[in-house]
Amino acid sequence: MMKISINRQYFIDQLNHSLKAISPTTTTPILHGIKLEVTEDELILVSSNSEISIEITIPTEIDNEEILEIHQTGAVVILGRFFVEIIKKLDGDFVHIESTSGNTTTISSGKSKYDLQTYDANQYPLLPDVNNENAVTFPASILKNIINHTVFAVSTSETRPVLTGVHLESHEDGLNFTATDSHRLSFRKLEDSSYSLGELTAVIPGKSLIELNKIIADSDETVEVYFSQNQVLFTYRNIRLISRLIEGKYPDTSRFIPTNFETSFTVSKQEFYHAIDRVSLLARESRSNQAVKLIVQDGQVRVSSQSAEIGFADEDVNVNNLEGNDFKIAFHAKYMLDALKSIQDDEVSVQFSGEIRPFIITPIESDEITQLIVPIRTY
Amino acid sequence: MMKISINRQYFIDQLNHSLKAISPTTTTPILHGIKLEVTEDELILVSSNSEISIEITIPTEIDNEEILEIHQTGAVVILGRFFVEIIKKLDGDFVHIESTSGNTTTISSGKSKYDLQTYDANQYPLLPDVNNENAVTFPASILKNIINHTVFAVSTSETRPVLTGVHLESHEDGLNFTATDSHRLSFRKLEDSSYSLGELTAVIPGKSLIELNKIIADSDETVEVYFSQNQVLFTYRNIRLISRLIEGKYPDTSRFIPTNFETSFTVSKQEFYHAIDRVSLLARESRSNQAVKLIVQDGQVRVSSQSAEIGFADEDVNVNNLEGNDFKIAFHAKYMLDALKSIQDDEVSVQFSGEIRPFIITPIESDEITQLIVPIRTY
Repeated sequence: MMKISINRQYFIDQLNHSLKAISPTTTTPILHGIKLEVTEDELILVSSNSEISIEITIPTEIDNEEILEIHQTGAVVILGRFFVEIIKKLDGDFVHIESTSGNTTTISSGKSKYDLQTYDANQYPLLPDVNNENAVTFPASILKNIINHTVFAVSTSETRPVLTGVHLESHEDGLNFTATDSHRLSFRKLEDSSYSLGELTAVIPGKSLIELNKIIADSDETVEVYFSQNQVLFTYRNIRLISRLIEGKYPDTSRFIPTNFETSFTVSKQEFYHAIDRVSLLARESRSNQAVKLIVQDGQVRVSSQSAEIGFADEDVNVNNLEGNDFKIAFHAKYMLDALKSIQDDEVSVQFSGEIRPFIITPIESDEITQLIVPIRTY
Repeated sequence: MMKISINRQYFIDQLNHSLKAISPTTTTPILHGIKLEVTEDELILVSSNSEISIEITIPTEIDNEEILEIHQTGAVVILGRFFVEIIKKLDGDFVHIESTSGNTTTISSGKSKYDLQTYDANQYPLLPDVNNENAVTFPASILKNIINHTVFAVSTSETRPVLTGVHLESHEDGLNFTATDSHRLSFRKLEDSSYSLGELTAVIPGKSLIELNKIIADSDETVEVYFSQNQVLFTYRNIRLISRLIEGKYPDTSRFIPTNFETSFTVSKQEFYHAIDRVSLLARESRSNQAVKLIVQDGQVRVSSQSAEIGFADEDVNVNNLEGNDFKIAFHAKYMLDALKSIQDDEVSVQFSGEIRPFIITPIESDEITQLIVPIRTY
């Protein structure tokens, strides 16, 4: 049926990627499994859930070092998480996997031997086909960067499914990425016509991007991306990750981003982050709405929060280039902390259009990123 | 009311000890707090729950370095976990704590300022008095060792409260410590008459020993222990930990420990541990009783487990000095792993009195420790 020996440490690394497409809550038993398909010259691992599928191709040699010995071709589906735990616990440099009958596979290494119930590989669903049109290639580091700038702002609620994804809009000069849960919004531009996909738009599930982000390294390696009607395919090293796209019309968010400002300042990102983190301790402890207040008065910016049960916290923030009217506003601490965390720059600009209007945070040296937060009306 | 400045890092370390006596589930609001009592020359931190109380004394100087400045004496009770989180988040080497009115305390450092609701220190309960009779002094490392050998085996069920503690029995040649949840038992001897407390017996709550174990370092420092009727006091460095003792008659466990054996072997502790850990993966996954089977046959020891849903695992174990009859037995994997983990020695002896009788694991080079496990009847 199938018989291989494989370098254990290399196999663990690949299986850890493969697990990212296994959902512990799936109700289709075979999807708890990883399909191992052994051909004449490679081993293919397949895992899948309703959102994503991952296909990993393992060759027999890497850099002239043998990592896989193929004794007999064939295929089998083995319970995923459990299988990986076994491979991790074993000792020995190589593990031996042999499937003799239709429903038992033996895993052995050293003196340990496991006989596991397995599924018939013919029952495993076929992966969707994604054709090679609409292709774009990113350096892995840029794709990671885009994901980190946007994905935290997608909605986690299924009431408007389209908001659980990141919206990609292509135009002739490049790509725009938007994520919003309707309380805050992240907007990322990639202005480089070599990335243009014409008029294409797509909504990629946030969860798929989070798993992709765990797999790709912050490096110069390339990630190729292919869009078809309902699917997107990412290829990276020996890994193919296919995600469904979310159907439905994404809202026109561009009109939400304010362009006229009444009050603004620039501030050290670190200092602002820590000040809000500290005062928000109180907001977090209280069972109220996690509101942090920001007051601009007499040339001074102060952040504060309070909890009836615990007390009051405040802190002055050193800002630069303060312009505009005295002013006060309240916002969710978490939204501000998430937005600041997503920006790498040392100095950010914070711009307000009014006490009940959304406000924006941007790096001062680039217009690539806009983080928008809807205030809380507490005053 | 009270006003101090204190070295922040030193204070965090002391507060972390203090937190160990704060139970998040207490229904007495003031016991969520830590009492800060400032005298002319020291700060005393007091925290307490129904099981233990901790009193920590902080001097103004340590090794000629000032760690505490006392501006005004007084006392206040501040919400514990929250207070420690604030102190951790602040920057600056020193924090300033000032209690001006009866119910507000100001904590400040750098530009940050917190005004916290606080409790009246007069409302804080008095700690129990423990007199200085029945004293014994341990090197911290030996006390840790005794705790590690026994405390994991106490019962976590309140149906027989006396089993939730470690039983100390003094005799003229030293001390015996026993813990059992009725499925397994740990017995530790300390044969040295200098530790003798006469005829004293006491049952110390397992939870108190676990917290004590986190506070004391594995070192030559001393821990003094004082027993009174209902309380035990441990003093270590600048810390006093008082625990209630558990009332009730501890069962006579000595008769459970077998002394005649039918089958026995010695084995590398590491190898045995890992073999059982590996095969028990299956036992753990299945919702059944976590049984691992051990078979002695034709001079060979084999451990195995199975799960109807997943499969079968087995592994041969290299043992030495195998004596006695062919034999099979089943036991909880966790009990065996816990017992082996508690023993530092490289080689252990495993001795069986019959397939349905408790069996014991001991280090081969000492009779200080006996770990007993009650088998599962599955055959």
